[in-house]
Amino acid sequence: MLANPIPWPDGARCAVAITWDMDADSGLNWYNPDRADNLVASQSQTRYGPLIAIPRLVKLLKERGMRQTFFIPGWCIETYPAAIDALLSGDNEIALHGYIHERPNELSAEDELYWLQRGIESFRKHIGVRPRGWRAPSFAFSKHSLGYLIGEGFFYDSSLMGDDVPYRLRHESGTLIELPCDMALDDWPHYMHNRDFRTMMPIASPRRAGEVFRAEFDSAWRHGALWVGVWHPFVSGRLSKLDAVVDLIDYMQAKGGVWFATCEEIARHVQALIDAGTWQPREERLPLYDSPIPALKKR
Amino acid sequence: MLANPIPWPDGARCAVAITWDMDADSGLNWYNPDRADNLVASQSQTRYGPLIAIPRLVKLLKERGMRQTFFIPGWCIETYPAAIDALLSGDNEIALHGYIHERPNELSAEDELYWLQRGIESFRKHIGVRPRGWRAPSFAFSKHSLGYLIGEGFFYDSSLMGDDVPYRLRHESGTLIELPCDMALDDWPHYMHNRDFRTMMPIASPRRAGEVFRAEFDSAWRHGALWVGVWHPFVSGRLSKLDAVVDLIDYMQAKGGVWFATCEEIARHVQALIDAGTWQPREERLPLYDSPIPALKKR
Amino acid sequence: MLANPIPWPDGARCAVAITWDMDADSGLNWYNPDRADNLVASQSQTRYGPLIAIPRLVKLLKERGMRQTFFIPGWCIETYPAAIDALLSGDNEIALHGYIHERPNELSAEDELYWLQRGIESFRKHIGVRPRGWRAPSFAFSKHSLGYLIGEGFFYDSSLMGDDVPYRLRHESGTLIELPCDMALDDWPHYMHNRDFRTMMPIASPRRAGEVFRAEFDSAWRHGALWVGVWHPFVSGRLSKLDAVVDLIDYMQAKGGVWFATCEEIARHVQALIDAGTWQPREERLPLYDSPIPALKKR
Amino acid sequence: MLANPIPWPDGARCAVAITWDMDADSGLNWYNPDRADNLVASQSQTRYGPLIAIPRLVKLLKERGMRQTFFIPGWCIETYPAAIDALLSGDNEIALHGYIHERPNELSAEDELYWLQRGIESFRKHIGVRPRGWRAPSFAFSKHSLGYLIGEGFFYDSSLMGDDVPYRLRHESGTLIELPCDMALDDWPHYMHNRDFRTMMPIASPRRAGEVFRAEFDSAWRHGALWVGVWHPFVSGRLSKLDAVVDLIDYMQAKGGVWFATCEEIARHVQALIDAGTWQPREERLPLYDSPIPALKKR
Repeated sequence: MLANPIPWPDGARCAVAITWDMDADSGLNWYNPDRADNLVASQSQTRYGPLIAIPRLVKLLKERGMRQTFFIPGWCIETYPAAIDALLSGDNEIALHGYIHERPNELSAEDELYWLQRGIESFRKHIGVRPRGWRAPSFAFSKHSLGYLIGEGFFYDSSLMGDDVPYRLRHESGTLIELPCDMALDDWPHYMHNRDFRTMMPIASPRRAGEVFRAEFDSAWRHGALWVGVWHPFVSGRLSKLDAVVDLIDYMQAKGGVWFATCEEIARHVQALIDAGTWQPREERLPLYDSPIPALKKR
Repeated sequence: MLANPIPWPDGARCAVAITWDMDADSGLNWYNPDRADNLVASQSQTRYGPLIAIPRLVKLLKERGMRQTFFIPGWCIETYPAAIDALLSGDNEIALHGYIHERPNELSAEDELYWLQRGIESFRKHIGVRPRGWRAPSFAFSKHSLGYLIGEGFFYDSSLMGDDVPYRLRHESGTLIELPCDMALDDWPHYMHNRDFRTMMPIASPRRAGEVFRAEFDSAWRHGALWVGVWHPFVSGRLSKLDAVVDLIDYMQAKGGVWFATCEEIARHVQALIDAGTWQPREERLPLYDSPIPALKKR
Repeated sequence: MLANPIPWPDGARCAVAITWDMDADSGLNWYNPDRADNLVASQSQTRYGPLIAIPRLVKLLKERGMRQTFFIPGWCIETYPAAIDALLSGDNEIALHGYIHERPNELSAEDELYWLQRGIESFRKHIGVRPRGWRAPSFAFSKHSLGYLIGEGFFYDSSLMGDDVPYRLRHESGTLIELPCDMALDDWPHYMHNRDFRTMMPIASPRRAGEVFRAEFDSAWRHGALWVGVWHPFVSGRLSKLDAVVDLIDYMQAKGGVWFATCEEIARHVQALIDAGTWQPREERLPLYDSPIPALKKR
Repeated sequence: MLANPIPWPDGARCAVAITWDMDADSGLNWYNPDRADNLVASQSQTRYGPLIAIPRLVKLLKERGMRQTFFIPGWCIETYPAAIDALLSGDNEIALHGYIHERPNELSAEDELYWLQRGIESFRKHIGVRPRGWRAPSFAFSKHSLGYLIGEGFFYDSSLMGDDVPYRLRHESGTLIELPCDMALDDWPHYMHNRDFRTMMPIASPRRAGEVFRAEFDSAWRHGALWVGVWHPFVSGRLSKLDAVVDLIDYMQAKGGVWFATCEEIARHVQALIDAGTWQPREERLPLYDSPIPALKKR
């Protein structure tokens, strides 16, 4: 079904990037600026991510010989250095996820840049290099984001949903590789029920959520697509959910022909294909609109 | 269970109209007039419709030898001409779905007519004929809609939910054939989770959504009804959902006795039955009320 | 598990009252007083109740030799006389459900009484007798309701949820038999997705909703309880849902030992047990509170 | 998967604490202070807890030889003394759950303390001892809660979600044992649909909710964790839900190696391990923040 099928390494049928947005309590603070200090149960729920789930994930990935991608806000890098160290010890990829889970498209252009640069500063200071990958908190990619990301030297983004395989975002100032997501592969709609986040989903059993994840995987495998899990350590890193994640990985491995990779590896593969002239990604020019479209007004 | 069973062509047990509302980012703009230009992830999610899903659907339908109905806002016809051309190349039906996904019943009578005519103008300019079929964006059919649609020469509507088989809408100025829908056959309640649309559904696996679609189909088949899928290319045209659509079509075909048709074909069949005196549709007079009903006030 | 098991007629294991709230478009008007005249799709969806589902239900019940209870607002009695006649032709029970689906507990005491009496007036005028049974629209039973219902000569209510078997409501002015409900047996949480009602549920397949209904029935059967389905003709009277209702009834009948009855028959059975001294219902005194409870204030 | 596995008594694989928040109509009053007196159906639904479900639960637990923990607001202790007596007759644990289901983290520090002390006063007056255990209503533990609870002599809390096994909360004034919960094991997201609580969940069948509860249990069993059910008598004490609870307990017992205990027994076990130097719980210092974090402001 793909119009522009991408050759995956070693003839793999599809690529799987299991990614984790390690928000910890950053979003809780950003969305409840006047009262998050008082939301102790939600603090405990979200801090479960860096304190409990991350060491567990690091151990699990080492045992499996896997490396995965963790999108982390700068403030979390500062606040949870042990989690960062653990992730790096397993050679996992760390990419940037805002400074404190601010939503770029709800900010002025100036503020968006401020928080982006502050996130980069934290990243560089604690990790020692500049971030190469980006996912906008809440997928809130703005019309200014692409230019800013290119200006700051990012290599890829994973915030958009415009295709089934990697594509390229073109800005007047350069390009970025896009590794697209799908809300069905986010764990939030399946598991999140918390008044402090204004999100009251019915909570699925891991088996039901797994049905969704597997259906997406089976189709990605059949058609040669990219499958990007967007999970949260404090959600999918809890025991029962993580057991289901392990089952899912077992299922994928048993099916065979799956390229498990970090986002950066996938972006590098795409770039290598482009450089070799082997494959050209579809391209989208951004921003699509600079202002509300005139069509909304009566003529 | 039908009080007024309709004879389907060639003795078919039921009629199936798979219809697609190709909204692209029109609704995103209309519902977020001041900030849609900044909602880049939702742009990418919704533009997946014309850019990725439509070519895929066109190819799939050609392979299957099927023609389906696409309800498209005028602004999308202007903005995504390649998708329109592709659809026409497969001889699919294109019908009108507003100008920019405006909700008629939230507009003044004058504005409703303005946007309707602007949609028709786009339709005619790009497609070369006037539209014959209509579905109100968001099913937001107003008390003025019927008169306007008749005035503009429409032949059928598919926005209402008042029966299991086609019926007829009577206005003082004429009539229109109605091909009724059911929210259970819309893909939105099963799959849509997007803050920018204020719609945060738990996301079902395609198999669970398929259970709903099949249950409706099995009952339509048993009783001789019309089954109208109301799907969105950017939702049900994604890989895993479309695989499930194919499974569903296979299931319907295997069951046999199903008349797959475009909406216009169904409406023409109804008209032919009426003209031949073979069958009379149930009729509803609209508008039902011209103003808030007096019964709401204490006497 | 029942503290006060009730003897059902002929040694039945449990009692089943399938009840239908035939709201038609009354609630749509009440909840959208300024714009319901413009909500044509929702009009068509809700009017499906009296126009399509009721004749179908009447036929089905006749074939099955069953009688069921229909709670109907006075305005619907006036507006849909053919539906009322059809129901009466099948000797079904009609009980009152407000005048125009007003929520009593959102009204002043005076207004509540006004609408109640207006509903009774419609009922008596069109049906020829005073109503014997009552269900508050939206279950919105107020602190004044019991007194008013007793004053107007009602015999039973079916709006509360305080037990698994019938109980008795005591007011300073008399008593009423209560036939309690459970939201799990309402079809609304399983099937209703309509913006005009501010209710956007994921839509279950009839099989999933049926799982809930059956689980409740199996427990009612095991323990000797009363099972009250609270369904809406425009929801559960649609083809696929009604097929599932038939399956459920088949299931209940196959299990055996079920007393299918109208609400009034059940209330009469309760009264007969009381009169005979065979069984005493649990009693609750209402209103529980006359005003906001003092405990809410700091001392 | 546990970083700090706890030895359970007699080599048990995991610990199960089935706990019940017997809110009755306390929350209904607190969340609707101006109109709860008028919400009679919700009164009946919530009062089902103390009036119907509690006697049933007490009987069931006696038959099974089990003791469980009931978190009860002080106002409910005053209002439903028979339920309290019944619970005590079965030697069940009663712990405190606020005075009238107030949310501590929405109150001033002074008011939080006022209601806490008023709850303790009710508890002591009616039960004869001071409460040892606490669960914050709605899990709304505030930044002041820990200090207050220690000041009032509490021994454990069960309101947070920060681990899979018991841990310890450290305050400048002392410590408290924490028995963490998980929203997936609350019955609210699976079953609660009530406008008066602004909670409109799709209602799962007990089998579907049971899938979630079992998945969590199976993982707890596999990994040695603590499983804390957070159920409400008026929800999970209804017939069909309670039948499923019994099935779940049967399942747990058949699996074997499960330590069923009250919260206080678990907390005492933890304390004994600490005292014996056998095991040290992870510790968290609270409050985490005294005020909104400075990181939210631009520098």
